[in-house]
Amino acid sequence: MYYIGVDLGGTSIKVGIVSEKGDIIAKTSSTTPVEKGFEGVAAKIKELINKVMVESKIDKENIAAIGIGIPGACSKEGFVYFATNLFWKDVALGEKLQVLTGLKVYVENDATVAAVAEYIKGVTKGKKNSIFLTLGTGLGGGFIINHEIYSGSHGIGTEIGHVVIGENFYDCNCGNNGCFETFVSATAIIKYCKKLLAEEKDKGLIYNRINGNLDNLNAKIIFDCAKEGDHLALKVVDRMVHYLAIGLANLINLFDPDIIAIGGGVAEAGDVFLKKLKAEVKKYIYVKCMNVTEIALATLKNDAGMIGSGMYAKLNLEKE
Amino acid sequence: MYYIGVDLGGTSIKVGIVSEKGDIIAKTSSTTPVEKGFEGVAAKIKELINKVMVESKIDKENIAAIGIGIPGACSKEGFVYFATNLFWKDVALGEKLQVLTGLKVYVENDATVAAVAEYIKGVTKGKKNSIFLTLGTGLGGGFIINHEIYSGSHGIGTEIGHVVIGENFYDCNCGNNGCFETFVSATAIIKYCKKLLAEEKDKGLIYNRINGNLDNLNAKIIFDCAKEGDHLALKVVDRMVHYLAIGLANLINLFDPDIIAIGGGVAEAGDVFLKKLKAEVKKYIYVKCMNVTEIALATLKNDAGMIGSGMYAKLNLEKE
Repeated sequence: MYYIGVDLGGTSIKVGIVSEKGDIIAKTSSTTPVEKGFEGVAAKIKELINKVMVESKIDKENIAAIGIGIPGACSKEGFVYFATNLFWKDVALGEKLQVLTGLKVYVENDATVAAVAEYIKGVTKGKKNSIFLTLGTGLGGGFIINHEIYSGSHGIGTEIGHVVIGENFYDCNCGNNGCFETFVSATAIIKYCKKLLAEEKDKGLIYNRINGNLDNLNAKIIFDCAKEGDHLALKVVDRMVHYLAIGLANLINLFDPDIIAIGGGVAEAGDVFLKKLKAEVKKYIYVKCMNVTEIALATLKNDAGMIGSGMYAKLNLEKE
Repeated sequence: MYYIGVDLGGTSIKVGIVSEKGDIIAKTSSTTPVEKGFEGVAAKIKELINKVMVESKIDKENIAAIGIGIPGACSKEGFVYFATNLFWKDVALGEKLQVLTGLKVYVENDATVAAVAEYIKGVTKGKKNSIFLTLGTGLGGGFIINHEIYSGSHGIGTEIGHVVIGENFYDCNCGNNGCFETFVSATAIIKYCKKLLAEEKDKGLIYNRINGNLDNLNAKIIFDCAKEGDHLALKVVDRMVHYLAIGLANLINLFDPDIIAIGGGVAEAGDVFLKKLKAEVKKYIYVKCMNVTEIALATLKNDAGMIGSGMYAKLNLEKE
């Protein structure tokens, strides 16, 4: 049997047919028609599912279930409480897709399904307890506990990005101050870099690289300049690493997992900071004689969403 | 069959015979001979076990196993990495007691065994996912996840007290700044109160209550004065509640448990702050439309350690 894995994001929808082992057999994608609202996006998902089935010549009888990873929080039944980038609030996505496709549908947070992908085929494969972090515009997370997907008693756990870990110079979108993601996400790095560019006289390499236009600033430019030894860029990266270390040590002190995997866009600059990060994490681990949790970069990149959604459907179906 | 539950603390050792259902059949206790070191304390535990067995007329054949809750971190095999208040480092407590008694011995962190007690007989009874916090001199914690005791991949998790949640005016004993326990433990409250007494002109009720001697200050006096409306005491309690709310919301955003139970000495002043606390936690929950995790005071008080240790032994024995 095969599974359909849907990676639903604010920018694009990716749909893949995934084998029992987690291999992508066929895939297709489209931009997300956010402006068409819930009904429009659901219809587009349906269309992409049909397309990939026709192209791959795998028909409905060979599809066991559909899994969808969403950029938001939802119940185990696929009721989406909110998905900020899609402007969704309280929509029954699971039910809707079930009606549209006639197939069983499972919905989960995108970071949780990516955690599943890494557990099945990636860097956390087969580990008893693992945490997956996705470092991009925001910071998401997924937990595997005792070889099982963990999302809490009501499906709203693993919001790693909104754990308060300090005091910051700006508030989080969620309304709180000091959220983990406001120190380490791409958004956070850019904000802090802009602050330094406004405050410091010697604006180093970055200011030239963006032609003096702050709108051109992105995380990649900052990491590239840090690689070249630029003092301002290094200051930004060092602060990010400092808080990332505090956040990871918090997770280690709480969960003591076998491994923490870091994925997402920012992680692709991982070689710049991974060594620094590991050294910094050690400082904050409570049981210092036991530096046992591995910290590694995620391996599945862009396919993690589709693989993870498909495998999430498989794991749930098997449990029923 | 019966179980022996040992509650090993820096001040006292309590030993109880616990029934299959978690009832204490007989108990005894003694001060902890910390000055006699590991061997001396182990011998004292053995002596207390013998005493309670003789007194209750329950002999070795009817004891299935021994459980010990320790104020420190240890492996699943009962190897204690450290127990600060006992001045222990790397001692094989499980093995030692097994040799001394001829019975199977299970060792766990004291907060984890108290979490087990609450899960078997207390306020978290039968809940799928729960967190137990013990608020005393420090801040400890224990997790039940998916109806099972969770202490991490290497037995060093659930160190809730050492999760960094902000910036504080003094460093934690562990060497870090901003640890959860430095904001909310009895030690933390007393430190902050002393700071206010030194800084503020109007020293309110507290200064009289302690006869101007800071050595007389304790958490109970602060809570009592807060109950009477004293402004300085209220400032201390409000700050504690603020950070306790951040720490609890962090746990909810991560774990989304059914319930969080608060035990320990400070919790006995719970009625002063529980209502305030619940209102404050709401502010920091990420999925605000879902205020679903119950927050409650633990119910087993002083017996939790013995019951929990005994039941910890039972649950482990059943799994083998």
